[in-house]
Amino acid sequence: MDVMALLAVARGDQPADLVLRNARLVNVFSSAIEETDIAIAGDRIAGIGAGYQAAQEIDLRRAYVTPGLIDAHVHIESSLCTPPQFAAAVLPHGVTTAVTDPHEIANVAGVSGIRYMAAAGAGLPLSIITMAPSCVPATSMEHTGARLDAHDLAPLLAEGIVHGLAEVMNYPGVTYGDPAVLAKLAAFEGRPLDGHAPAWTGPALNAYVAAGISSEHECTTPAEAAEKLARGLYILIRQATNAQNLHALLPLITPANSRRICLCTDDRVPADLLDAGSIDWMVRQAIAGGIDPIVALQMATLNPSERFGLHDRGAIAPGRRADLLVCDDLHAFSPHLVFAGGQLVAEAGRLLPAGRQDAPPLPPELAGSVHVDWSRVNLSIPARSSQVRVIGHLPDQLVTEERILPATIVDGLAVADPSRDLLKMAVIERHHASGSLGLGFIQGIGLRAGALAGTVAHDHHNLVVIGADDESMLLAAHTVADLGGGLAVVAGGQVLASLPLPVGGLMSDRPIAEVRTAYDRLTAAAASLGSPLHDPFMAMSFMALEVIPALKLTDIGLVDVVQFAPVPLFV
Amino acid sequence: MDVMALLAVARGDQPADLVLRNARLVNVFSSAIEETDIAIAGDRIAGIGAGYQAAQEIDLRRAYVTPGLIDAHVHIESSLCTPPQFAAAVLPHGVTTAVTDPHEIANVAGVSGIRYMAAAGAGLPLSIITMAPSCVPATSMEHTGARLDAHDLAPLLAEGIVHGLAEVMNYPGVTYGDPAVLAKLAAFEGRPLDGHAPAWTGPALNAYVAAGISSEHECTTPAEAAEKLARGLYILIRQATNAQNLHALLPLITPANSRRICLCTDDRVPADLLDAGSIDWMVRQAIAGGIDPIVALQMATLNPSERFGLHDRGAIAPGRRADLLVCDDLHAFSPHLVFAGGQLVAEAGRLLPAGRQDAPPLPPELAGSVHVDWSRVNLSIPARSSQVRVIGHLPDQLVTEERILPATIVDGLAVADPSRDLLKMAVIERHHASGSLGLGFIQGIGLRAGALAGTVAHDHHNLVVIGADDESMLLAAHTVADLGGGLAVVAGGQVLASLPLPVGGLMSDRPIAEVRTAYDRLTAAAASLGSPLHDPFMAMSFMALEVIPALKLTDIGLVDVVQFAPVPLFV
Repeated sequence: MDVMALLAVARGDQPADLVLRNARLVNVFSSAIEETDIAIAGDRIAGIGAGYQAAQEIDLRRAYVTPGLIDAHVHIESSLCTPPQFAAAVLPHGVTTAVTDPHEIANVAGVSGIRYMAAAGAGLPLSIITMAPSCVPATSMEHTGARLDAHDLAPLLAEGIVHGLAEVMNYPGVTYGDPAVLAKLAAFEGRPLDGHAPAWTGPALNAYVAAGISSEHECTTPAEAAEKLARGLYILIRQATNAQNLHALLPLITPANSRRICLCTDDRVPADLLDAGSIDWMVRQAIAGGIDPIVALQMATLNPSERFGLHDRGAIAPGRRADLLVCDDLHAFSPHLVFAGGQLVAEAGRLLPAGRQDAPPLPPELAGSVHVDWSRVNLSIPARSSQVRVIGHLPDQLVTEERILPATIVDGLAVADPSRDLLKMAVIERHHASGSLGLGFIQGIGLRAGALAGTVAHDHHNLVVIGADDESMLLAAHTVADLGGGLAVVAGGQVLASLPLPVGGLMSDRPIAEVRTAYDRLTAAAASLGSPLHDPFMAMSFMALEVIPALKLTDIGLVDVVQFAPVPLFV
Repeated sequence: MDVMALLAVARGDQPADLVLRNARLVNVFSSAIEETDIAIAGDRIAGIGAGYQAAQEIDLRRAYVTPGLIDAHVHIESSLCTPPQFAAAVLPHGVTTAVTDPHEIANVAGVSGIRYMAAAGAGLPLSIITMAPSCVPATSMEHTGARLDAHDLAPLLAEGIVHGLAEVMNYPGVTYGDPAVLAKLAAFEGRPLDGHAPAWTGPALNAYVAAGISSEHECTTPAEAAEKLARGLYILIRQATNAQNLHALLPLITPANSRRICLCTDDRVPADLLDAGSIDWMVRQAIAGGIDPIVALQMATLNPSERFGLHDRGAIAPGRRADLLVCDDLHAFSPHLVFAGGQLVAEAGRLLPAGRQDAPPLPPELAGSVHVDWSRVNLSIPARSSQVRVIGHLPDQLVTEERILPATIVDGLAVADPSRDLLKMAVIERHHASGSLGLGFIQGIGLRAGALAGTVAHDHHNLVVIGADDESMLLAAHTVADLGGGLAVVAGGQVLASLPLPVGGLMSDRPIAEVRTAYDRLTAAAASLGSPLHDPFMAMSFMALEVIPALKLTDIGLVDVVQFAPVPLFV
C-alpha cells in the first residue's frame, strides 16, 4: 500500500476501499469497546471514526470487530498439509497470522525445506512468519536428513526469510553453554528467541533465560508457568492435538500478568483444525473458563504482536494490516466474517475464493525424500538376555515410562507379543540410506495384529514402524516408502489404509479435507486392529522424539531422555 | 559480560560478583513482590533465587528492589549540562536509562552535534539511548545551524549511533505527506518513531499514526491521551519544567491500559533535576495520586523497555542489565541505593565515584558556535501602522495568545513600553552571520527595565532577546555572544548576571551544581527587574518555537502557528 494513498484515505481526502460501519471495535490497547466506523485502504486500516466514504460499505449493525488472531507457535507440517492448505483450514477460524517453525521439513531437507515453506507461505492471505529451526538435529542421538548450524541459519535472517530463532529444544545445551547452541543464539541476537524447556526450573532456568531465550510453550502447570513468566519468558499457552495445556494453565492468567501470555497450537491434525478450530477455539475455551473476553483476545492479538515485534498487526489501528474478524457475540466468539489484508477471505466458517492459493511446485529434493537400503533392514532381534527395556506409552501424553519386562523369546529371537500388548517398534533411517536402524518394544499402542508405519517421526522424521509381527512391519514400511513417504496400516498381507505424504514424507499435496478423510480411514483401520488410541499415528510419531522423557527410540536405538544418553535394549 | 561466564554464575557453578540477599523483588512481569536473592555477574543479573554465593553480599533486610528507571524522552541539553553532568544529576534519583533526542545540539551543529552527544554519553553508568532528531530545522520558517535530511540520518542508524527517530514535530508534514518527512520515516521503518502532535485528532491523527508514528508525549488532557492511546500510540506522560502534564493525565491510567503508558521529562532545568528529581519524582507523584505502585513502576521500567524494544533492561530477570534500585518504602519510593550495570553508583541521593565521568573534549564546531554580523543588527522598528500583533505569554505554558494591541510610537518607531508590559523581542540568526533578524513585541514577561538574552531558543537556538529598551537588548545580546553562547540579564548598562554555555551555546562545561547556582542568579536578577515568572529564561526560549501555537517569533519574523505561516507585525 502506497503511503501517500494511505494518508489521503486516512485524512478523508480520498475514498476508502471499504468502510465497516457501525462496528463495536474491540480496542486491545485501551481494553474498551468503541462504537465507530473502520476505513480500509488496500491491505491496511486507514482510519477509525465517523465520516469516511468508500466504494464498498458494510453495515455491521453493531457487531463486534476484533483483530485477526495470531498463532504464536505452530508447526504447519503437523497439519500434514502444505501452507496454502493449512491456511485454508485456519483462515475461516479467524487466524490471520501464524508464527511458524518449519523444523519438521528442515530435518528432512535442511535449508531447502525452509525455503520451500517460506515460498509456499508467501503471498497467502494468512501471514506466515517463519522462525529459523534451531535444533536440526535435536540432539546427536538421531540421524536426520540435514544438519543446520549457525552459519546455515544466519543467511536466512539476512535475507529476511526468517524472523527469529524457533524453539531451542536443546535446553541442556543452552544452560550448559554448548558452543554450537550459543552460536545460534548469537546469530539471532536482538531477535525473538523461542524456548522449549519442559520442567526446567531454578538455577538451570535462570541460565536458560540469561542466554537470551524469551518465550516458553512447554509449561504444563500454573506453578511452572508462573516461575517462567516471573523470570521474563513470554508464556505461550499450547493447545495441540496431543498436548493440551490450556485448561491447566487458566489459573495462571490474571489481568496483571496477561500481557506476557500468548496462545499457540504447536501441532494440530486436520480433524482438530477443521472441527474444533485453532486459536479461536482457545479463545472460546479461555472465555468459557472465566477469562475476560478482551484479555483472552489480547493473548491472541496484541500480546503476540508485542512479543514478536510484529507492530503492523495485532490491533485495529491506522496503518496496521486490515486483518479483522466480525462476530455477533464476544463470549461465543465465532467469527462470521474474516478479513485478511483488507480482503474478505471467509464467511460463516467457509473459505471464499480470495482465501485460496495453490502451493508452488515441489523442489526435487522434497519430492523424493525416502531413501532406504532395504538390504540392510533386518527387524529380527537376537535375544541377549531375558529382560528388555520397554517404552510405556501413556494415553494423550508425550512423556513415556521406562518398563523393564520379560522378553518373549522364540527361536532365540525377542519378538512382539500382542497378547501382552508388547509390540515391536523400529526406526529406520530414511534420508541417506545409511542402514541405521533402531529396534525396541512398546506397550500402550494396542494392536492385536498388523502394523503401522509412517515417515512422520518427530523431529528426525525417519521411518517409524510399530507392529505385531515382522512381516506386517516390513510391508507397512515398504508401503510408505513406495508412496514417497506417508502413513499406512497393514494386516494379513494387505494394506488396509494409507495416506501419501509426498512433500518431504511429511505433507500431502491434496486439499486438507481429503487429507482428513484419509487420516480418518487410517485411524479407523488401526482401531479395527485393536488400538484404543484416538490417534495412534500422532502417538507413534512422538515415540521417536528423544528430547521428551523418559524412554524413546531413534534410529540409533533406545534413548534414556532423563540421562540424555543411549541405553541398551536388553537389561 | 561473557555469556559462558554469565551462564556459569546463573547455574550456580561459579560465584557471583554480588548477591543482594533478602530482597523484596518488584516483579514487573507478574506484578508480584518476590522475597528472594538476586545474583549479579559483571553488568548483568545472573540469577534469582536462594543459594547463590558471591565475593560480595549485601543483606537488604527485606528492602524493595526495583528495576532502574527509564526516562522515555528527554533533551539532555535542557539541563544546560553535558551528558556526564546530566547523568550525575539523575543517577542518584534512580534513572539508569535515558532515551534522548539531541535535537537542540543538532540544530546548532548537525551530525557533529549528535556524534558529540553520543560520544559524551558512551560508557556512562547512565545508559543513553540516542534517537535521531527528525526536525532539523523544525519548519522552513526559521534558520538553523544545520539541516538534516533522511540521507544524513540513515548512516547514523546504520552505524548504531541512533536507535530510532525522535519526535516528529512536523505533524502537518506527516499527515499531509511531505516527501522529505516521509523519507525520514521510511529510513527508520521498523524502528521506534516518536511523535509530537499537540491536539492532533480525528482523521488528521489517523493519518499521523498510519504513517508509522508510534508514540506521543504532547498530550495535555485525558481525552486527548485516550484517543491517541486508542489509535495505537504509546503515551509518554511528560513532566517538564515548563510543561507539566502528569496530574492532568492521571485519570487516563487504568490497569487495563497502563502497559501502553510511559513517563518522560522532556526538558528539565538543573534546579528541578537536583531538587525535585526526575522520573522518580513522577513515580512518587503518580503513587500519591492513587496509581498502584507496581503500575507506576511499570510505566517507568517495563513499558518503555517494551516500547523501545530495549529488552535488555526494564525488569529484574536473568541476562538483563543489573540496573537496580533499593528502597525501604514502595509508596515513598526514594531509592537509597542505585546500581547501574552492576556497580553501586549512588547512595542516599549522593553520587559515588563509580557514577562520575568527564565529558570528552569539545569539537571546534561546538566550541565556537555564535556567529553574528553585528553591522546588520538594527533593533529599531519603523511604525507602519498603529496596531501590532503581540505575543501573549501565558504563565507555565508553551502555547501563547495572539493579541492585537495599539503600538507605542516614539519618533516614528514602535518601541517597548514597560508601563503596558509591552516588551520588545528580537531573534537574531547566530549560526551563519546571515543578518536574518525577527522583531516583535511580547506581553507577560514583566520586565520593567533591562533585558534578557540567550542562545537557547527552541529549536533553532538563535540569539533571542527580550527587553525594555534597545540599548539593554543590544548589551545583553553582545554579552551572550562574547561568552561564546550563554544567558545574561542586563540593566542600566551593567551585566547583572550571566552563564556561559560554550558547548554549542546550549550547555555548560561545568558541574551541574555550579550551573544551577548561576541559573538561580539569573532568575533572581530577572525578578529584580520585575519579572514575575519563576523561570523567565525557559519561558523566553519557547517563545521562538514555531511548532507550538498560537503566535511565535523566529528570525524570519512572526509566525502564526495555527495557520503555520508567517504574518506581518503590523495589522
